[in-house]
Amino acid sequence: METVSTNHAFGGVQGVYRHASAATGTAMTFAVYVPPHAPGAKLPVVWYLSGLTCTHANATEKGEYRRAAAELGLIVVTPDTSPRGEGVPDDPDGAYDFGLGAGFYVDATEAPWATHYRMWSYITDELPALVAAHFPVDIARQSITGHSMGGHGALTIGLSFPDRYRAVSAFAPIVAPSQVPWGEKALGGYLGADRAAWRRHDAVALIEDGARVPALLVDQGEADQFLAGQLRPELLAAACEKAGIPLTLRMQSGYDHSYYFISTFMADHLAWHAKRLK
Amino acid sequence: METVSTNHAFGGVQGVYRHASAATGTAMTFAVYVPPHAPGAKLPVVWYLSGLTCTHANATEKGEYRRAAAELGLIVVTPDTSPRGEGVPDDPDGAYDFGLGAGFYVDATEAPWATHYRMWSYITDELPALVAAHFPVDIARQSITGHSMGGHGALTIGLSFPDRYRAVSAFAPIVAPSQVPWGEKALGGYLGADRAAWRRHDAVALIEDGARVPALLVDQGEADQFLAGQLRPELLAAACEKAGIPLTLRMQSGYDHSYYFISTFMADHLAWHAKRLK
Repeated sequence: METVSTNHAFGGVQGVYRHASAATGTAMTFAVYVPPHAPGAKLPVVWYLSGLTCTHANATEKGEYRRAAAELGLIVVTPDTSPRGEGVPDDPDGAYDFGLGAGFYVDATEAPWATHYRMWSYITDELPALVAAHFPVDIARQSITGHSMGGHGALTIGLSFPDRYRAVSAFAPIVAPSQVPWGEKALGGYLGADRAAWRRHDAVALIEDGARVPALLVDQGEADQFLAGQLRPELLAAACEKAGIPLTLRMQSGYDHSYYFISTFMADHLAWHAKRLK
Repeated sequence: METVSTNHAFGGVQGVYRHASAATGTAMTFAVYVPPHAPGAKLPVVWYLSGLTCTHANATEKGEYRRAAAELGLIVVTPDTSPRGEGVPDDPDGAYDFGLGAGFYVDATEAPWATHYRMWSYITDELPALVAAHFPVDIARQSITGHSMGGHGALTIGLSFPDRYRAVSAFAPIVAPSQVPWGEKALGGYLGADRAAWRRHDAVALIEDGARVPALLVDQGEADQFLAGQLRPELLAAACEKAGIPLTLRMQSGYDHSYYFISTFMADHLAWHAKRLK
């Protein structure tokens, strides 16, 4: 693991790191914030998964998570959203919603994506092991959140490993990719035409199929341009109600899909996570 | 005045605006955060001046000022750092420390800079009038801060108008441009070889020449790569001590020159300003 940069921030250290990923077969860059802590202490870790077009840098620069993470004693990891580099195929039309910057947190099974697009394994397996080996993490205390496509990742990963992630939340998540254009394109492209294979990468379908978590927190801006077409939080609300999962869905008047929205509610999410990570 | 964008954030609105500046003879872009407030209320305004290479966007995206500004009821204005656009001359070598992104908050007197590089008039005269006309500002309650070159701007403007700016602070400011390479190049280029003309754009010289403010707050990272060569806060400390200006100079162990440093101490500065703006 190579250190790209470190900067003091809020009494801790914001670092950016690069490593050769076995999962993706590429170099991968990620960021880790380690808050101030007592020597030898092991801290809980919050995973923040980013949305379409993002790298680790968007949340690191604009997410405003460090003050709250420092106060709450949380390590925050912000990974990249896809493999990158020479030989990694991209959307044939260069679209923003597939390929580079749009890994959708799945292990692709279709050619030519299956070789490198293995973000599920990367996020749930390889990167946690790397982070546990190099940072003062109590790996028994993990939680996960994310934005948009990353909210989809947080929900599907959290629902798939309820014993591993003690808290799951999301900002403006894609809750039912099988039912919206972004998701249909991505899951169809990476996983193929058989929609049965999509269900474990669709939060609403996972809940319908029996996945459970103790609670969910979702913030959604009412002025989000993707609300009606791509995000559809009402589908998650209906699935949670039917399944008996307590969902706190907060519709935020006036807020859009940007980091101005995310940063506003970041501290709330981290506090919610911290409570469940104690 | 044209609205470039508005985004809800922390209960208020972060806007970006563009207008034709009479001072610079160019289009100028600036950002204004208006916190949540009672209808009809007039709010104090904090000016944040940015450093070399920056536009309004650096602080707007990475400064993390909105949470504190919302809590304290402060409008925050983040202007650009130079004129830009067709016909605006730049450093002949394209250096980052002169010309575009490096206006140094002076009205240039030397050709070819004198035509457009009039950031002193822009920041102290034209933009306050524009902001007062379009936003719910109590223009009797202004304060000023900034980073690096913008810290230089905040100190020199604050010292020049002690009745107008009720609080003055800075992050890693250039305190004595006449005595460091960045400043010698910029003031020499914009104002000419006569160093007497530089003194009213040099915070230490202004204090030596009798300028006074009730108090100053300065944060400076000890790991700042520009500390010894360009910033030299000890010169400000000496001038303030001699002049009897209470200076709170906080040397911050481990912190560098980046927005990770600025964002860490932003809330402290805004609280310090708010106290003096009440």
